[in-house]
Amino acid sequence: MPEFDLAIRGGTVVTAADTLRAEIGIRDGRIVTVAERVADAARTVDASGLLVLPGGIDSHVHIAQPSGPGIVMADDFASATRAAAAGGNTCVMPFALQPRGASLREAAEAYRALAEGQCHVDVAIHLIVSDPTEAVLGQELPALIAAGYTSFKVFMTYDDLVLNDRQILDVFDVARREGARVMVHAEGYDAIRYLSERLEKAGETRPFGHALSRPQLVEREAAHRAISHAELVDLDIVIVHVSGEQAMEQIAWAQGRGLKIHAETCPQYLTLTADDMKGIGDDPMSGAKYVCSPPPRDAASQAAIWSGLQRGVFEVVSSDHCPFRYDDPAGKLNPRGKTSFRWIPNGIPGIETRLPVLFSEGVSTGRITLNQFAALTATNHAKLYGLYLRKGSIGPGFDADLTLWDPNHRETIRQAALHHGADYTPWEGFQVTGWPVMTIARGRVIAEDGRVLSEPGQGRVLDRSLAPG
Amino acid sequence: MPEFDLAIRGGTVVTAADTLRAEIGIRDGRIVTVAERVADAARTVDASGLLVLPGGIDSHVHIAQPSGPGIVMADDFASATRAAAAGGNTCVMPFALQPRGASLREAAEAYRALAEGQCHVDVAIHLIVSDPTEAVLGQELPALIAAGYTSFKVFMTYDDLVLNDRQILDVFDVARREGARVMVHAEGYDAIRYLSERLEKAGETRPFGHALSRPQLVEREAAHRAISHAELVDLDIVIVHVSGEQAMEQIAWAQGRGLKIHAETCPQYLTLTADDMKGIGDDPMSGAKYVCSPPPRDAASQAAIWSGLQRGVFEVVSSDHCPFRYDDPAGKLNPRGKTSFRWIPNGIPGIETRLPVLFSEGVSTGRITLNQFAALTATNHAKLYGLYLRKGSIGPGFDADLTLWDPNHRETIRQAALHHGADYTPWEGFQVTGWPVMTIARGRVIAEDGRVLSEPGQGRVLDRSLAPG
Amino acid sequence: MPEFDLAIRGGTVVTAADTLRAEIGIRDGRIVTVAERVADAARTVDASGLLVLPGGIDSHVHIAQPSGPGIVMADDFASATRAAAAGGNTCVMPFALQPRGASLREAAEAYRALAEGQCHVDVAIHLIVSDPTEAVLGQELPALIAAGYTSFKVFMTYDDLVLNDRQILDVFDVARREGARVMVHAEGYDAIRYLSERLEKAGETRPFGHALSRPQLVEREAAHRAISHAELVDLDIVIVHVSGEQAMEQIAWAQGRGLKIHAETCPQYLTLTADDMKGIGDDPMSGAKYVCSPPPRDAASQAAIWSGLQRGVFEVVSSDHCPFRYDDPAGKLNPRGKTSFRWIPNGIPGIETRLPVLFSEGVSTGRITLNQFAALTATNHAKLYGLYLRKGSIGPGFDADLTLWDPNHRETIRQAALHHGADYTPWEGFQVTGWPVMTIARGRVIAEDGRVLSEPGQGRVLDRSLAPG
Amino acid sequence: MPEFDLAIRGGTVVTAADTLRAEIGIRDGRIVTVAERVADAARTVDASGLLVLPGGIDSHVHIAQPSGPGIVMADDFASATRAAAAGGNTCVMPFALQPRGASLREAAEAYRALAEGQCHVDVAIHLIVSDPTEAVLGQELPALIAAGYTSFKVFMTYDDLVLNDRQILDVFDVARREGARVMVHAEGYDAIRYLSERLEKAGETRPFGHALSRPQLVEREAAHRAISHAELVDLDIVIVHVSGEQAMEQIAWAQGRGLKIHAETCPQYLTLTADDMKGIGDDPMSGAKYVCSPPPRDAASQAAIWSGLQRGVFEVVSSDHCPFRYDDPAGKLNPRGKTSFRWIPNGIPGIETRLPVLFSEGVSTGRITLNQFAALTATNHAKLYGLYLRKGSIGPGFDADLTLWDPNHRETIRQAALHHGADYTPWEGFQVTGWPVMTIARGRVIAEDGRVLSEPGQGRVLDRSLAPG
Repeated sequence: MPEFDLAIRGGTVVTAADTLRAEIGIRDGRIVTVAERVADAARTVDASGLLVLPGGIDSHVHIAQPSGPGIVMADDFASATRAAAAGGNTCVMPFALQPRGASLREAAEAYRALAEGQCHVDVAIHLIVSDPTEAVLGQELPALIAAGYTSFKVFMTYDDLVLNDRQILDVFDVARREGARVMVHAEGYDAIRYLSERLEKAGETRPFGHALSRPQLVEREAAHRAISHAELVDLDIVIVHVSGEQAMEQIAWAQGRGLKIHAETCPQYLTLTADDMKGIGDDPMSGAKYVCSPPPRDAASQAAIWSGLQRGVFEVVSSDHCPFRYDDPAGKLNPRGKTSFRWIPNGIPGIETRLPVLFSEGVSTGRITLNQFAALTATNHAKLYGLYLRKGSIGPGFDADLTLWDPNHRETIRQAALHHGADYTPWEGFQVTGWPVMTIARGRVIAEDGRVLSEPGQGRVLDRSLAPG
Repeated sequence: MPEFDLAIRGGTVVTAADTLRAEIGIRDGRIVTVAERVADAARTVDASGLLVLPGGIDSHVHIAQPSGPGIVMADDFASATRAAAAGGNTCVMPFALQPRGASLREAAEAYRALAEGQCHVDVAIHLIVSDPTEAVLGQELPALIAAGYTSFKVFMTYDDLVLNDRQILDVFDVARREGARVMVHAEGYDAIRYLSERLEKAGETRPFGHALSRPQLVEREAAHRAISHAELVDLDIVIVHVSGEQAMEQIAWAQGRGLKIHAETCPQYLTLTADDMKGIGDDPMSGAKYVCSPPPRDAASQAAIWSGLQRGVFEVVSSDHCPFRYDDPAGKLNPRGKTSFRWIPNGIPGIETRLPVLFSEGVSTGRITLNQFAALTATNHAKLYGLYLRKGSIGPGFDADLTLWDPNHRETIRQAALHHGADYTPWEGFQVTGWPVMTIARGRVIAEDGRVLSEPGQGRVLDRSLAPG
Repeated sequence: MPEFDLAIRGGTVVTAADTLRAEIGIRDGRIVTVAERVADAARTVDASGLLVLPGGIDSHVHIAQPSGPGIVMADDFASATRAAAAGGNTCVMPFALQPRGASLREAAEAYRALAEGQCHVDVAIHLIVSDPTEAVLGQELPALIAAGYTSFKVFMTYDDLVLNDRQILDVFDVARREGARVMVHAEGYDAIRYLSERLEKAGETRPFGHALSRPQLVEREAAHRAISHAELVDLDIVIVHVSGEQAMEQIAWAQGRGLKIHAETCPQYLTLTADDMKGIGDDPMSGAKYVCSPPPRDAASQAAIWSGLQRGVFEVVSSDHCPFRYDDPAGKLNPRGKTSFRWIPNGIPGIETRLPVLFSEGVSTGRITLNQFAALTATNHAKLYGLYLRKGSIGPGFDADLTLWDPNHRETIRQAALHHGADYTPWEGFQVTGWPVMTIARGRVIAEDGRVLSEPGQGRVLDRSLAPG
Repeated sequence: MPEFDLAIRGGTVVTAADTLRAEIGIRDGRIVTVAERVADAARTVDASGLLVLPGGIDSHVHIAQPSGPGIVMADDFASATRAAAAGGNTCVMPFALQPRGASLREAAEAYRALAEGQCHVDVAIHLIVSDPTEAVLGQELPALIAAGYTSFKVFMTYDDLVLNDRQILDVFDVARREGARVMVHAEGYDAIRYLSERLEKAGETRPFGHALSRPQLVEREAAHRAISHAELVDLDIVIVHVSGEQAMEQIAWAQGRGLKIHAETCPQYLTLTADDMKGIGDDPMSGAKYVCSPPPRDAASQAAIWSGLQRGVFEVVSSDHCPFRYDDPAGKLNPRGKTSFRWIPNGIPGIETRLPVLFSEGVSTGRITLNQFAALTATNHAKLYGLYLRKGSIGPGFDADLTLWDPNHRETIRQAALHHGADYTPWEGFQVTGWPVMTIARGRVIAEDGRVLSEPGQGRVLDRSLAPG
């Protein structure tokens, strides 16, 4: 009987620190050996000419999330994780959202139930705290953290989700005491409302109005506020989906003062601009395909975000996958959305395109190294959110979550070839160099050359604890 | 008949730009001539060896203001303006406070009625907007601005005064449209509440707890937020009583980006520290004498504020005079105040000591020039708040508001010699070099060598319009 | 006999701090009275509708200065000061240059002799120290400072003028000890040489090569170095003709750290760009008309310099008038200059256009106030260089140096109308709003409506002492 | 026959990215396998309870280097590399110094000859270019780079080494063209000379004068200058032994602008202060033990440097080992050194203490992670200087250079226990937590529990090429 279930031979193994020629021996879903030569295996994959990367971890995705009256998110767990697998990912982290007035615990349980048995890749669930009542702060949240829901997000905007400053301080306090990781959506609610009303009064209701209603300073102010609250409570936080140069400068300033402010950005802030929301040709409504929050900015901001990636301001690149169908009354083109940008659901699909877009624009252009790519797309996600030592790198003891990558493969991104539930991709026609050719999860090949081979249920729902240090 | 009512001879005339030897001829309460020699006058004042300064303008004082249940402010208009005159001032600017639920217009009228006939020096009234209802935003405030109440203050803290971000944006909007000057008290309400409750739970109820409940970052965050709102609305604002290095850095950063953010600081932030709130000897309650908001900081912050004065970050130095009696059940030692710092009324007296303290620590030490002193204590106040061309400098056409100053006079500040309604001064025993020896308002000597010679009512209540440019 | 020799009536008097309606009475060349009404005068000037400004002081001009073999500066004292008078100036400050190997004292005396009897406006002479021998540092320079040459310039570039770092430190040391004001030309010699040689090797010899040979970072590095040397020696310095955003940021950074670094900029850095050096049409050599050092930059840098003017980074705006004829073998088009930008004499004429260009682009556009204009063009020059109390403002005791200015007069700048010795102006065709209509020096009208009325010799050569504070 | 020569079992393997439980199999001096279990080995080391770290690389040491007349460096290759081995290092990088007027090639060859056959650990040689003649720039340096001397240092100070700005630009130019890594000693020669002479004149000749002669701004200015030159030439550089907060701020500023400025610091700047140079008790000369350049600073600067380590401003921590005997006429107490700090040889020993001091103060205190420690002491050195893929990490294919580390071992540093040639250590009595218990080089145990087991000559002299990316 062969010593290994699976052997990867001939590839170049990439971790967040190292790049080396090695073979990998896998048994029982875990990496057992990394060596110049590994022994016989039941199956051997030839990775000649390929990079062997840690399987992508996307720590910020929205799946089957309640999205307001009449609006339906385009992905359930089956479709989202199928797309994730096709895109080179082996773990994704969606959000269990607490509706106002409802129990956080019940929301978490119900959401977990949706996931069980449906997933192609492993899933770890964040919470969203929208109603920090005494019961939530005093019992539910501490209990959930202890039970493995060790991270949650708070919002500084959106009617149904926004917390005021006191609520933010109170949940930060619980997180510090109980040892949870807090993610912050930093945009200022009141400023957005003020601008949106002014824009609507002025008749600016097209999708592009969305960009005008959330200028950079709205994100910058909220980032500064979140940083200040974190400093007050003495809590490390993650500021997610940073889109603009101005918010980034606040974060870099805080880091320079010794505060532990972690930051995430997304491919849309590296490759798209606000002008995309103006739509194509004479169809301003088609700009709705690009409506997400915060909105993409401009070329100067893109350059700044790249520079932040290079010098370590950002630790993770996620997709913020938040898919809605475009040509659908329950999606972007819902009846109210046609009357004003305010009713266009916020979010774009990206779970399947995150890795190719970042690799192509980052690694292939020489902006970031291969090791930075591994760190930004896998290792740092695992470390930030308590998955490390199981997930996030390549070495004995880690789950055998691997992505085989052809750095020279050129491809044009097309909706027709994607697996998500949306009916479009914002990167339609985008040309990339570098492509995932095989995804291996817990030692099984779940995707190869664009075909997903796994069954729903093969992926597990993970519990976590915050890794020390 | 002599050409002038009053001539000032032999002195060194100081303006915000110039320092020169000249005589001043005054007629009908106004300066008519500045010359090497002026003609005969009914009265001649010999200013040999003295500086002739523009009369001090204190654009931030609280007089006879409602201060919560059972608390009484220690000064009415008569006592406050008498103290102002003795301290070298010829104009002060107190606040008509709108109580929540009440009419702003009625508050303004009632407050003006309190002042009429009582004042020793001229008075110009700011508003405080605490309840920006539709009626206030749509009618009362625009009408009051048109009627000469061209400046108002908003608060980002205090239970009865705090505006939320949307309200701030809305009042900023009115100010921009109607041409009013907005002053902002920048401290974050929710953060202070959070900290105060935590401190009380921990048993830290002494006056020094006040300092702990409002660390620098609370002021910094609010300053950044106010700046962002001002940038959004495209409005110049004044951030008042800046106490800490961190808030100042935000302001300097904004100014460096081209935003018109004006800033004020006060003698307490240049000479006192948080440690003063620990009280004297074994009497921690005596620290209540120093409880004001924001609280004084530390030596490093003092140095930073001085540097900001030197290089123009700050345009005005005011007293933020807000007097309460110390040993008084309606003052600092009120019954609830003894149970927690939260109930100690915030504020310290300073209307009479502002000029000597700033002159001594600023000019006599060489930190600032005589011209900067004139600008910081008079000229810039007049320009910021629409009093210029009547007030704020020395030249033909200006009101004959002058302070004769002995730069070499050494004095020790003593409560016994002061004229305000408080029963103590935070600068008790403070030694100064430089002292006002005569105050002249509209051409009449109203104070001389510490004696106030004017009658209540000699000072007028002024209307204003915002000066262009 | 009338009380005054001259009265200015009906105008708006502008100082660095104040703007007021007043009449001015002048006797024996000095201002005697500023008043609502002044008594009879032998001559009265009607300034109705006009501004009465302190006469312009241009503290950085080059006149009749040795400029290398075969090159002749286009202005002698007579022509330069005639142009100054026509442009609204009443005092200019040129440089007595010490040739290497020669005596500084003899250079100063010879230069002063050139000026005596030739000038239309007052002149105060700076020194240029190019050879700080032991004799110069130990005897000549201290003696000259004591004799009234209280300011000198050092160069960080130019073959015949550059001082190395040790020499700079040594002259700074003398300046601190003897109380002199040092001006620094901050561009890095070695970097310029390195780039120039590289450009020439690459065949880039056109005038535009001049811009490429002195990028912003060359000025920035030298500015940082000069600041560091000044900090080491504990000396206030003036960094002159700051052209680029990057150098300005260093200066603002130093000022923010509490260092007394003064800064000067010039109209060319506010209105011209490097592209001007590309020449007009198909004549790249015509770019030579714009060759000066440092070179003009780009629109972003212009905006930054304006912002620095607004917030006080810069104290003075000078012309750096350094005139050469264009179409002249002893000027811009000298034989070697045609072979490479390195041999085109550096400098442009500007003594006559400084005030209109700054007023039009600064005051008429609302970027700076009238008071800032007075400070930047007159008062601060006088204070920086020891002329104050005689020059620089309007008030009893000051020399009657005044410029009457029509803020609404529109004019197109034309070489044909100028009085300098150059045969072109870089601002040919430049349209301005605001124009000097009369120049009064020591109480005599020396220019009116573009005609110069004075005789050479009417202007004096001044001695100075550094004003305290 | 066992599969491996050596197996490390039971330890925790640490790389720059990962921390995992694994065994290591070694054959022919290289790591062959990293696995949960490795096969039989001729020798097995039990690493239970220990960390298995990449062998320390010290990329900045001085060995047997000419040090001025009458001064002898305290270490030759045998003693220095013996000390390195004892301190947990497996590779060191000393400098072949070109004397002025001599051939760089000959200097390199002679220095290499000194090393051959003498070393306990591997050695890779940097060059020092002190005389960039045309022959050096045009032939010698390119040839040496091609031959594997792919890095060199330039000095901005020291009589015999300093390059002027033009020389720096020229050698940077060669480095960019030929692909070499340049290290810069950033302190300003002229400023140091100026201060030293002033101090000597004032009678301040004690060792502490060394600190006064090289204040932070001298290092800051040189750092800014080096950055500017690197920017001009478009070259990545390494600024070595950064000691002060001010220089670090320049580097962070450059990195924030997107420049590739690498930076190194040393344990002395994290743990010593200028006060150490005042000497012990009443013996000011004993301060000579701490004289190195740049000098250690103060507590604030230490904190800043730690913060820079945490957030990635610094990539490497080296020792800058530069040993002289203290009580020796050819060392610190040489006859001239007793007359002035200027003649005390600059440098302190540190090759053996670097790792324990950094681990204890960094990792044991929680300031940096284990992974950062591995990166700062090994991986990044290898990547910066072209040793990577042979050296710097743990994985198949790397040299079996390993340090077994007991994180809980407490030790007091004592000269008596050290192996270097100096007769003192600046860290005498310094208590550390964490200690190297075994050093393995190319698969052989060369040091164990403080005993060095290797023979001179076991270490090789390496050639290099710059790693891509």
